Order: sequence, then C-alpha cells, then structure tokens
Amino acid sequence: MSKKAVILLSGGLDSTTILAIAKSQNFECHALSFAYGQRHIIELESAKKIAQKFSVTDHKIANIDLRIFGNSALTDEIAVPKHSKVDELDAKNIPITYVPARNTIFLSYALAYCETIDAFDIFIGANAVDYSGYPDCRPTFIKAFNDMANLATAKTCDGKNSFKIHAPLVNLSKEQIIEQGLKLGVDYSLTHSCYDPTIQNDKILSCGKCDSCLLRLKGFNLAKKTDPINYI
Amino acid sequence: MSKKAVILLSGGLDSTTILAIAKSQNFECHALSFAYGQRHIIELESAKKIAQKFSVTDHKIANIDLRIFGNSALTDEIAVPKHSKVDELDAKNIPITYVPARNTIFLSYALAYCETIDAFDIFIGANAVDYSGYPDCRPTFIKAFNDMANLATAKTCDGKNSFKIHAPLVNLSKEQIIEQGLKLGVDYSLTHSCYDPTIQNDKILSCGKCDSCLLRLKGFNLAKKTDPINYI
Repeated sequence: MSKKAVILLSGGLDSTTILAIAKSQNFECHALSFAYGQRHIIELESAKKIAQKFSVTDHKIANIDLRIFGNSALTDEIAVPKHSKVDELDAKNIPITYVPARNTIFLSYALAYCETIDAFDIFIGANAVDYSGYPDCRPTFIKAFNDMANLATAKTCDGKNSFKIHAPLVNLSKEQIIEQGLKLGVDYSLTHSCYDPTIQNDKILSCGKCDSCLLRLKGFNLAKKTDPINYI
Repeated sequence: MSKKAVILLSGGLDSTTILAIAKSQNFECHALSFAYGQRHIIELESAKKIAQKFSVTDHKIANIDLRIFGNSALTDEIAVPKHSKVDELDAKNIPITYVPARNTIFLSYALAYCETIDAFDIFIGANAVDYSGYPDCRPTFIKAFNDMANLATAKTCDGKNSFKIHAPLVNLSKEQIIEQGLKLGVDYSLTHSCYDPTIQNDKILSCGKCDSCLLRLKGFNLAKKTDPINYI
C-alpha cells in the first residue's frame, strides 16, 4: 500500500514539480492549498487543475486570511516590485513580497492534515537557490520545523513514528527544477507563478517583471526551453 | 517604552492568567484569538471582555476553519467525553478533544503577528501539569517551536533579534495558576473553560463534567476558592 503524503500545492512551478516527485515516489498524494488573501488568488485555479491532472486522492483548500496581519505586497495594498531584468533582484534584502511566517503557517496546517489521515510525509517546494531570500525557504528552517513537528503531535509523541518534511528542490536552481519536472512529464502550462497577473479576455497574463516571473523566465531560459504560459 | 508581546488568548482560565502576567511584566499586550470552528465558540465572547478589561493595545481574532481536517471532539460532531469526577480522566491516552496541531498553528499565527508589529515575545498558556495530555503543551514542544521560530522569519534571520516564547504556566498546577491569577487581580468570572456549554436564558452554563471543567473545578477546590462561573 502506498504511503500517504501531504503536498503543499500553490499552483506554481515549484509546488507542481514536488507533486510530480511525490507521485514518482509512489506516495498517495493529498494536496493542500491556501486562500490566504493573496492578490494572485488565481493561482488556486492552477492548483485545482494540477491536482486533477495528477489524480490526487484529495485536495483541500484552507481559508486563512493573513490580511489581518498584512505587511506584505502579496496580501496588502502595497505595489509588487517590478524589475526589467533578473540581475536587478536585490539579493541582500528580503523583498516586500515576503509574507510573515507564511511557510511556518502552511507547514503547521500540513501537520494537522497529516495527523488526521495518518500521514507522516510532507512535501514543500521551498527553494534556497533561485529564490527571493525568504528565510522560511532555507534548509535550516525546514530542519527546525521537522524537529518541532515530531514533538508537536499526538501521532508522534510516543516516539514510534516520525514526520519527514521533504524539500527536494531546496538546493536546486530553477533551471534544474524545470529540467527535473519536464523529465517527470510536468505540464508547466498549467502552472501560475506571477504575483501581479492581469486577466484579458479570460486569458491570464503574467507580468514578466515581478521577482517570481523573472526567476521563472531565467530558469526556462537556462534550461533552453520555452515557458508555455502567457505574458503581457 | 514597553516591549510589545503577542498573547494567545482563548478566553479560558490559563490564557487570561498569562495576559495578567504579561501585563504585570509591563508588556504592551496584543491579544490574538481564533475562531477555528470550535464548538465552544462562546469562549471568544469571554476573550473579548477580558481583552477589554486588560486594556490590550489590540485584539485580533483570526478566522481559521480547522473543521476542514476534523478529527477532534472540539471541531467535529463527536461527543465531548464526560466524567463524574476528575480521577476518571485518562492520564495515559490523549483524549478526543485534542485538536491536531492546534498549538503549532496558533503559535505560527502569533509569529506572523509578531513580525508585523516588531514584537519578539509570545505568551502561551500551555500547561503540562493539570492538563489533558496534549503533546503540544509540553516544555520540549515549546522549546522546539522557539528554536524553529528564530530561523523562520525575516526579523530574526540576521541573528540580531530573537523570539522568546513565554509559557509561564507550563510547570504549574491549576491550583497554582489560580492562586497566581488571583494575586494579580484576575476576575475569573469573565473566563470560559467548558468544551460543551449550554445557554439558558442568556446565561452560559458550563457542563462541569468535561476534562476542562473538571480540571478547573479541581484547581479552585484545591486553592480553596469558589469558581465564580455558572455550572449546570
């Protein structure tokens, strides 16, 4: 019998690739997405299509409004920073698109989900190479969360079972992620990455200038592949 | 200037006592409560009154529906276990009132709140003596969460600041908690503990037989005080 896993699925390139990886490792996949007040809520439409495409066993969308805290360009009326090329991304400072404690909250929900279905494996598409400097994407954070998780729940406190947080992309470049996904047959036309998309005649157009678009485009460029989604 | 702290405030006896403790330590208190689908949602009315009584700087109530995961007598259509006396509480098994990963989720939200107001102190009323065996109330869990928190956020990843999770009740008995609260002037008539309350003629009546009521009553009994709330 397949082992169950909870997959954090935003509908983006990274999370879709980890779903493909989990599937390739024969996990029974339970996808978890969040409506957290993100301005690019359209990503959930991608998440739904991707969940269906991969025939996940279940796909839950948790409604959690992080706008009560705000302080991020993704959840507040703060402009998403735009750049003309990827070299302009500020590698030293954490950008305003950082959402306070987001991955901690997402992983906490994944833990709750695991407990209720007797799963001990969580997949997260965190990435510490071609990323935006978010602290909760680093391997040290993932490890610390994993240690905490094993002390947090009824299912592990007898010491017989333990959780494993899988972050298979954490040390890969965007190029490597795309190459791995394509090998596993991922259809990246279903994914959505842009923080500030426009909808024109029912077509979703990515801005091509936010951090997320620029890192994505750089990855496809280096992998010598064409990004199949639409840009402005 | 006072340091800011986020206080996890359920409206119960423990969380009200920690709010009093945080106030007595001159913290500027920002209270955080949760509508998580709990059957005793009435506790939030207590939380509001208590937040007002203590003149907190802000009181946020996060809407997070944990019923999407279920598997707890507090969020599902599962009967809350009742006992005729406190000795009947099962000390060996974690009861069905345990909500999967609840404290992990609550603390994660507190962390997000902290980041947005530049606070580094979180107060939680976790208690590992007169409690129901919940794994996420143990000191080892609190410490592991604290370690993880310091790696999780933009505000601490430069190593200049660090979070402190205060769990001042963790090693106290219910009797000691009540004694400390009374010394600090807590009005326990405002608090609500029962998992399965009844409302009769606009009066909230606690059941007196759930784990939470029994531990509360035992505490007042040993402290030789009268519990000022109403029971069936």
